[in-house]
Amino acid sequence: MDSLHPADSTQFLQQQLEAVIHLLEKQELENTLVRKSTSSHHDLEEALVEKQHHVRLQELLSDLHPADIAFILESLPLDQRKQVWDSIKADHDGQILLELSDAVRETLIADMEPEELATFASNLDADEIAELADDLPKRAMLKILRSLNSQERSHLKTILSYEDDQVGAYMDFNMIAIRDDLNLEAVIEYLRNLGKLPSHTDKLFVVDQENIVKGILPVQRLLTHEPTQQVHEAMVNDFVQFQIDEDLADAARAFERYDLISAPVVDAQGQLQGRLSVANIIDFIREKSDDDLLSQAGVEEDEDLFSGVWKAAQNRWGWLLINIATAFASTRIIDVFQDIIVQLVALASLMPIVAAMGGNMANQTSMLIIRSLALGHITSTNVRRLIRKELSLGLLNGTIIGLLIGMLSWLLYRDTALSLVMGAAMLINLMLAVIVGLTIPLSRHKLGKDPAVGASVMLTAITDSMGFFIFLGLAKWFLIGR
Amino acid sequence: MDSLHPADSTQFLQQQLEAVIHLLEKQELENTLVRKSTSSHHDLEEALVEKQHHVRLQELLSDLHPADIAFILESLPLDQRKQVWDSIKADHDGQILLELSDAVRETLIADMEPEELATFASNLDADEIAELADDLPKRAMLKILRSLNSQERSHLKTILSYEDDQVGAYMDFNMIAIRDDLNLEAVIEYLRNLGKLPSHTDKLFVVDQENIVKGILPVQRLLTHEPTQQVHEAMVNDFVQFQIDEDLADAARAFERYDLISAPVVDAQGQLQGRLSVANIIDFIREKSDDDLLSQAGVEEDEDLFSGVWKAAQNRWGWLLINIATAFASTRIIDVFQDIIVQLVALASLMPIVAAMGGNMANQTSMLIIRSLALGHITSTNVRRLIRKELSLGLLNGTIIGLLIGMLSWLLYRDTALSLVMGAAMLINLMLAVIVGLTIPLSRHKLGKDPAVGASVMLTAITDSMGFFIFLGLAKWFLIGR
Repeated sequence: MDSLHPADSTQFLQQQLEAVIHLLEKQELENTLVRKSTSSHHDLEEALVEKQHHVRLQELLSDLHPADIAFILESLPLDQRKQVWDSIKADHDGQILLELSDAVRETLIADMEPEELATFASNLDADEIAELADDLPKRAMLKILRSLNSQERSHLKTILSYEDDQVGAYMDFNMIAIRDDLNLEAVIEYLRNLGKLPSHTDKLFVVDQENIVKGILPVQRLLTHEPTQQVHEAMVNDFVQFQIDEDLADAARAFERYDLISAPVVDAQGQLQGRLSVANIIDFIREKSDDDLLSQAGVEEDEDLFSGVWKAAQNRWGWLLINIATAFASTRIIDVFQDIIVQLVALASLMPIVAAMGGNMANQTSMLIIRSLALGHITSTNVRRLIRKELSLGLLNGTIIGLLIGMLSWLLYRDTALSLVMGAAMLINLMLAVIVGLTIPLSRHKLGKDPAVGASVMLTAITDSMGFFIFLGLAKWFLIGR
Repeated sequence: MDSLHPADSTQFLQQQLEAVIHLLEKQELENTLVRKSTSSHHDLEEALVEKQHHVRLQELLSDLHPADIAFILESLPLDQRKQVWDSIKADHDGQILLELSDAVRETLIADMEPEELATFASNLDADEIAELADDLPKRAMLKILRSLNSQERSHLKTILSYEDDQVGAYMDFNMIAIRDDLNLEAVIEYLRNLGKLPSHTDKLFVVDQENIVKGILPVQRLLTHEPTQQVHEAMVNDFVQFQIDEDLADAARAFERYDLISAPVVDAQGQLQGRLSVANIIDFIREKSDDDLLSQAGVEEDEDLFSGVWKAAQNRWGWLLINIATAFASTRIIDVFQDIIVQLVALASLMPIVAAMGGNMANQTSMLIIRSLALGHITSTNVRRLIRKELSLGLLNGTIIGLLIGMLSWLLYRDTALSLVMGAAMLINLMLAVIVGLTIPLSRHKLGKDPAVGASVMLTAITDSMGFFIFLGLAKWFLIGR
């Protein structure tokens, strides 16, 4: 990577991007000119121009880190992206594909031959191939499998046998394991022969002859301890290791809590199986938080910024359709009360407020619960106190907001009974909102399901329908036929 | 830290938590019994029981990592949390305070004396004290400042002089800087004398006599290169460094892109000022993503799970009040059309759908734009294509959803004109939703403001009001007086 000042890193990348776009547009123009020229060397000229641009693009991108080239590809519209990719792919390897977002990677892989893809993957590690596996066509995957040696193949199969949210799916095999009966000098000699340590090697894993992890040896101890010391004397016995089938979110929290850089992954017998590194943990945290934010806003999966319109549309339908269904459900409730709306049309103006505020309050409550569940802060002994707190809060906020909204309604319509009904409906719907905001995530968690999934849709559906029902119901009871 | 298997890490912590709660409840019970006893040694007995629990609590928590004790404190209700803290604080130092969430830390600091706090801070580094600075009372801060030596004091002042989102605010001073005219053997000797390297030391920073960073020396090269080599031969010249006043979010992206563990922080002259480490970057990423999710749900800041009801209520008012204001604004629009609602009451049932779908679509669009802006993917040259794509998408989805909703309305009310108005209103409001979903974040970004702040409230306010206006307006124009 170039000696770039990430001071202006994003700016620098954006400048490179502008340069690429500029080049592509110039190329477009020149091609048009050549095509229009009446020269007899038409084909030759066109090939020449093509060749020139090819070289210029390569020059522009050759010094960049694969992650930076990936950034530029992601920021380019589809046609330009493919043009750039075709110009540079011969000089690069699978690293760029690894760095791309899933959605953008798909657009590039779609146009590549299985042979080409297999060549790309040939310099990747098993854990890196596993990352691409979902997006690779079957034929390419078979070719890649055949090109691997038996150890690599078994590594790949191990990773692919774990679920996306398990430690096994995110581990790599770039660990250095040593036996505990060596002295440090021998270890240093061994490392010197290796020449280069894998990235994120802050510690060596010490194993016995059954490959069971006994301790860790921080690399810095090789420098600060006496070379004659034995590994088992210099190693750390209190260390963090992860089970291969354990929840990755838990492992990520442990990386944060203990400020880890790498940690051994073991099976149920304690045998060393692989390694987790902080680089993979950061990727996981970022992906998870992006997913949460996008799904909160009703976008199903990460979207290529310049994907086809049709594809993007499909990515957003799920959410919109569910919302149509719940919205129509609440119209059925309103319809039941048509007669009283006709008698007191102010109800039509006020009812959306009751529904909307309920949705807001339910979302506040459920988000805090979902987050506390994710942190592991909620247990069977403290959950009752938590429920009591949130209910008191609902009562307090319900009363205050009920009073406020009752007063505002009175200012608008000067109708005391209507204002009382509005305030009471508000209080009841807010209490209900807190109850569903608590129960939906807590019960989903109890059933072993992700408490966050679909929470906001269900909450809004309930608080909308109930909001309309409570408000219009109270109105019918108290206001009509006065 | 204990040799715990984080396999069951969260589980293990929860077990410790249950044990603590159990102990506290038992204590409560015994205290009550002693108070009721008629023994003449009443006071003595009570003191004895107290002492026993104190010891048991200490035993239970003594082996835990500060981060784990912080976890337990965060999961305890306020009264029990203070009880535990009072029992253990004498044996611990400021590390636990550092690991606590802001909201929980406040609850503990509130009851501590300035002298006590100053003692706690005495073993912390300048960057750690800076992290606490916001929560410490002024008197404690003065005491701490007085106890620091001049270098620590200047470090502390440097950090505090930067904004929360700048690199300077998150850096530490745990770097090892070496001159480039040494050989590796001398460097190794120097490290051996240090005895222990600071955590996250994967590289040494090579500086010239003006303290300007010339390169980095990966620690592993001390092991794999010849000891007789000069530092300037062994060092890496292509490295990533950060400007002290640069945006931390950009730095975090660079850490992810280049898989960094640590990196030098320099001033405008290139002089070494400090260090960023991946541990701080993870904290930043996590905090930012938590904040985004919470504010998306209308919770202002991170909340203590067991905070007082009154405090929690205030944390949620801001959002609720804004929503009351916008909701009442849209009632004014509905009121204008009261006459036509009375004539055709089905309008009252259908109008919330138009408003709600607009809000959903606007949120989808704006979330993708906000995210792409954060990633730096949007530049002046590609923004026009992006706008074109999103508008086409709005037209496509608007047409499909307009047709679908028109048909559903027809099934409900068998009124062709009403269904046409419904479908047309849907299409127009969805197009409008896409336009505001694009313009609000893009224009906020252009003005140099955070595009995410307040986006969802403004969008919903606009799509609600306009949804009601478009639908009822079309209805008045086409349906009434048929």
